[in-house]
Amino acid sequence: MSGSSKEHIIKSYDDELVRLTGELVRMGELAVSQLEAAIDVVDRRDERAAQHVVNNDDAIDQLEQEISHDVVRLLALRAPIAGDLRNVFAALRIAADIERIGDYAANVAKRSIPLSMAAPLTPTGGLAHLAELAAGEVRDVLRAYRDRDADLAMKVWHEDVELDEAYTGYFRELLTYMMEDPRVITPCTHLLFMAKNIERIGDHATNIAENVWFLVKGEPLNVQRDKRDLTSNPEPVKLGDRPT
Amino acid sequence: MSGSSKEHIIKSYDDELVRLTGELVRMGELAVSQLEAAIDVVDRRDERAAQHVVNNDDAIDQLEQEISHDVVRLLALRAPIAGDLRNVFAALRIAADIERIGDYAANVAKRSIPLSMAAPLTPTGGLAHLAELAAGEVRDVLRAYRDRDADLAMKVWHEDVELDEAYTGYFRELLTYMMEDPRVITPCTHLLFMAKNIERIGDHATNIAENVWFLVKGEPLNVQRDKRDLTSNPEPVKLGDRPT
Repeated sequence: MSGSSKEHIIKSYDDELVRLTGELVRMGELAVSQLEAAIDVVDRRDERAAQHVVNNDDAIDQLEQEISHDVVRLLALRAPIAGDLRNVFAALRIAADIERIGDYAANVAKRSIPLSMAAPLTPTGGLAHLAELAAGEVRDVLRAYRDRDADLAMKVWHEDVELDEAYTGYFRELLTYMMEDPRVITPCTHLLFMAKNIERIGDHATNIAENVWFLVKGEPLNVQRDKRDLTSNPEPVKLGDRPT
Repeated sequence: MSGSSKEHIIKSYDDELVRLTGELVRMGELAVSQLEAAIDVVDRRDERAAQHVVNNDDAIDQLEQEISHDVVRLLALRAPIAGDLRNVFAALRIAADIERIGDYAANVAKRSIPLSMAAPLTPTGGLAHLAELAAGEVRDVLRAYRDRDADLAMKVWHEDVELDEAYTGYFRELLTYMMEDPRVITPCTHLLFMAKNIERIGDHATNIAENVWFLVKGEPLNVQRDKRDLTSNPEPVKLGDRPT
């Protein structure tokens, strides 16, 4: 009714943008927690806790919807010009990437249920290591987004090579187990998919890194992108594939 | 310079929207062709053709970038109101889904390379069947988008159950092969991932179906969504899980 209540309703564009960034970072932190909870659940073979992680994914999906609505509000406040549009599109794309990270974390938790029902002697240590690397990447790239830090974004982009290599090593380890003992084939295929999910989380962290780079620099991060899953590539791993 | 040249530059909002829809449908058709080419390549074990499919994916990524730019132009023409915004967001989301479908098709082609280098006697017929179902879904949902046909979108959504069941059956078939003959474990893991990629294409077709529904009806398609990969679910398949 008064001037201050009007101010409360019609926030400024800049305030909305700050709010949007905060929401995205919060959403990202939730996704990282989901990944860590998923791995914890795999270690403990706790079916109920796994279901809890799967259900929590709805909260991330809900946040993504809210962020889309905030973007609508931002667009309704004024027809944005070039620089603002970069912020708007980056927010939409980053929200979509975080939503996917949440999905992958939930998938890891979901597969832990048939895994715990199958043979108990499967090597899950490698999985925890992959998750640690992926969680580190996501945390760093969220910080890069919050601080509009292009250098940190680039650092995350390069670090993903380490996750890819760890994934390839774990993939080969699982194949060896399967060949040695056919009884572990079923649980190991679950582990293969879980590992792949975590490797994909790293890819989404690098997508976010590319968006942060574009947001700060106004030009794309021009780098080769399709050599990530080295298990589908007959060539050996070459670190030099990524520019330094 | 003249009035007509100005008209050429500043298209009307409606014209832009028609153009955008056309671009998206074209992009989707390209993604379906990629999937069909990928399966053809698996059948023929043709490494060079596989690389061709992988390289073609850049064209789809490029189209997605162009569509994002068209959306920017659409937003710059006027600050859109509710109904228009639905079109804009649907276009952005559908473009992202098609881009993912293209990625999955390229992944199938990519994995055909190590597959053809491994044991030749692996069962790829099931894969072709999955691809056929997925391609049908994508074609139908593109038609639903082009014609703003909510009923057809709903139909696609339901049809995805068939793909999920075919995927589950093929997954089990591959596990059996692996247990019977450890020599086929490595190629079969590639087939597992290829099958999973195709199953995911179906998920993206249903995402598009949900967006078409929302676009036409103005309200979300309220349905359960996370029962898709039945191989990660200890419960047996129940068709009744999807509302009719």
